[in-house]
Amino acid sequence: MATIEDVAKLAGLSRTTVSRVINDQPYVTEEKKQRIIQAMNDLGYVPNSSARRLRSQRTETIAVLLPRITNPFFGNLIESMEEKASEWGYQVIVCQTHDSEKKEMDYLQLLKTKQVDGVIMASIINNWDDVEPYLESGPIVVCNEYMEGTPVPTVHMDHKKASYEATLHLMEQGCNHIAYVSGGPNSHLTSQRRKGFEEALKDKGTTKIEDLNIDWALDVKDGQKVFHFIKENHPYIDGVFTGSDEVAAGIIYEASQNDWEIPHDLAVVGFDNQMISLLMVPSVTTVEQPVKQMANKAVEILLQQLLHPGTHYPREYVFDHELLIRNSTKRRKLSVH
Amino acid sequence: MATIEDVAKLAGLSRTTVSRVINDQPYVTEEKKQRIIQAMNDLGYVPNSSARRLRSQRTETIAVLLPRITNPFFGNLIESMEEKASEWGYQVIVCQTHDSEKKEMDYLQLLKTKQVDGVIMASIINNWDDVEPYLESGPIVVCNEYMEGTPVPTVHMDHKKASYEATLHLMEQGCNHIAYVSGGPNSHLTSQRRKGFEEALKDKGTTKIEDLNIDWALDVKDGQKVFHFIKENHPYIDGVFTGSDEVAAGIIYEASQNDWEIPHDLAVVGFDNQMISLLMVPSVTTVEQPVKQMANKAVEILLQQLLHPGTHYPREYVFDHELLIRNSTKRRKLSVH
Repeated sequence: MATIEDVAKLAGLSRTTVSRVINDQPYVTEEKKQRIIQAMNDLGYVPNSSARRLRSQRTETIAVLLPRITNPFFGNLIESMEEKASEWGYQVIVCQTHDSEKKEMDYLQLLKTKQVDGVIMASIINNWDDVEPYLESGPIVVCNEYMEGTPVPTVHMDHKKASYEATLHLMEQGCNHIAYVSGGPNSHLTSQRRKGFEEALKDKGTTKIEDLNIDWALDVKDGQKVFHFIKENHPYIDGVFTGSDEVAAGIIYEASQNDWEIPHDLAVVGFDNQMISLLMVPSVTTVEQPVKQMANKAVEILLQQLLHPGTHYPREYVFDHELLIRNSTKRRKLSVH
Repeated sequence: MATIEDVAKLAGLSRTTVSRVINDQPYVTEEKKQRIIQAMNDLGYVPNSSARRLRSQRTETIAVLLPRITNPFFGNLIESMEEKASEWGYQVIVCQTHDSEKKEMDYLQLLKTKQVDGVIMASIINNWDDVEPYLESGPIVVCNEYMEGTPVPTVHMDHKKASYEATLHLMEQGCNHIAYVSGGPNSHLTSQRRKGFEEALKDKGTTKIEDLNIDWALDVKDGQKVFHFIKENHPYIDGVFTGSDEVAAGIIYEASQNDWEIPHDLAVVGFDNQMISLLMVPSVTTVEQPVKQMANKAVEILLQQLLHPGTHYPREYVFDHELLIRNSTKRRKLSVH
């Protein structure tokens, strides 16, 4: 846990100045104040006494909005957020929007009716213009999903970079006709992922690569349909990039039922490193998101904002992915010298 | 959707009498009133106008308490509860207790602070004596977990019957040494499951059957440990009953890494019919719970209680399971006549 000394060091200011900011005392310039708040955000420092003082006037509850908890990515995100929040005596309530604009608005009302102190949005369906008025009732942090130009802190992974790397990997394994499989509503996140895929194709510069777009695949059952769609309409496809381990599992399951050999007939990349990606036969190459780090950062920033109301510092916190290469894409044998 | 006529018919009373009860008018005996409320509960009937009248004074929010959303059983339960609740304009917030007595109490406070109108408890960690005082602040329905003698409605599956049937199935497949694998805190539900297992062993009456108890297995990683525990300490075990598809998947995954053949070296039964049980190689024999029906019933009863405060009718609603036999237990070939 970060200390007040760590904050002073990072901000390049004295412990006394930091203490002044924490206790809302005068004689600190706005510029220094911002530097200190930024340092507290970066370190995840939450002053104890302020936290206590604050809590007594609050519900000590934050809400996390997400599309659906049956997606294990969000389940794991919530686990980490709760752990972090409960370190500071806050409880977390989980609200499923099911990608519905109305439900998202209904849950944001929890801020207005003072049922919660702050909100973390792990997805956004409405336009930001419709969300922004709720900032008057309490702080909002955006985590996982992101939008350029929002006046709130956002915490997310670089999805463009991740899909670029995963697509390059498929090409390095000798895939020449790669399908892009996604699902759910269009968002900044999904468009960034798509861009990474397209840039990888472009950078490789080979015209052999086919771009097949499937945009309706969300779960295992959809993955099974994807396999049949490929088999019947585009049997020349030899690689698939999916935005979901569940879709990848569905493709692999159905392929084995139809005597296609994975990865030789079809190489498959999943997303999120869910447990299922390890348990499948063959195991699934996947992109691991830094779920715990993103969850911790989002909660820390939200608590900071509860402690320092009015300081909506619209900074982006971008985390890096890891590509885990498993048997669903290993088409090339290691060369022996 | 049930109508007022359906309620009248089931209660064996006139439409006018039902209408009187809905609108809280006099001249209805307590006995008739209870019969009508019971009929409304059974049919899931919620009078529209009362619902509207009521909602204007409420938060239109109910809370569901559960151990953890990363367990897909609870994810699916919540999905169905939300769908049902939103038919009546109610939103659902999800609260993870992590099997902590303190957290369970903290979330029950949401009733007292009027942040929610009612609570569904999908797990109970505290003694009922500690939970009961919260009934003064709003209705509570118990779903999935159950306790005898609680003065609130409970909705659950017959876990004793389910585990009895699953254990019998293992014995019919020729398993002679069956391990009982469970995890999580002791509760009425887990003790009922255990009883069903023991009764099946007893009824079969063969002394050959070994009862090995592992009570610390909750997820895939634990399942992997269970396999090694069996392999190193009790290699004669030829059948495993687990209370979790994830544990079953972990056992099967690790068995295949160690060249044990499932089901011939070890037959494995899971629980809950999660997607993973179908995707594993071999697919996992499992117990399917009537998740949707239980979720619907629990929400309906809670809404009934919100419409008729003070009528905590402590009835049990018990649903039946289904044993899905797949490749992880098929040791016996079908006999050919």
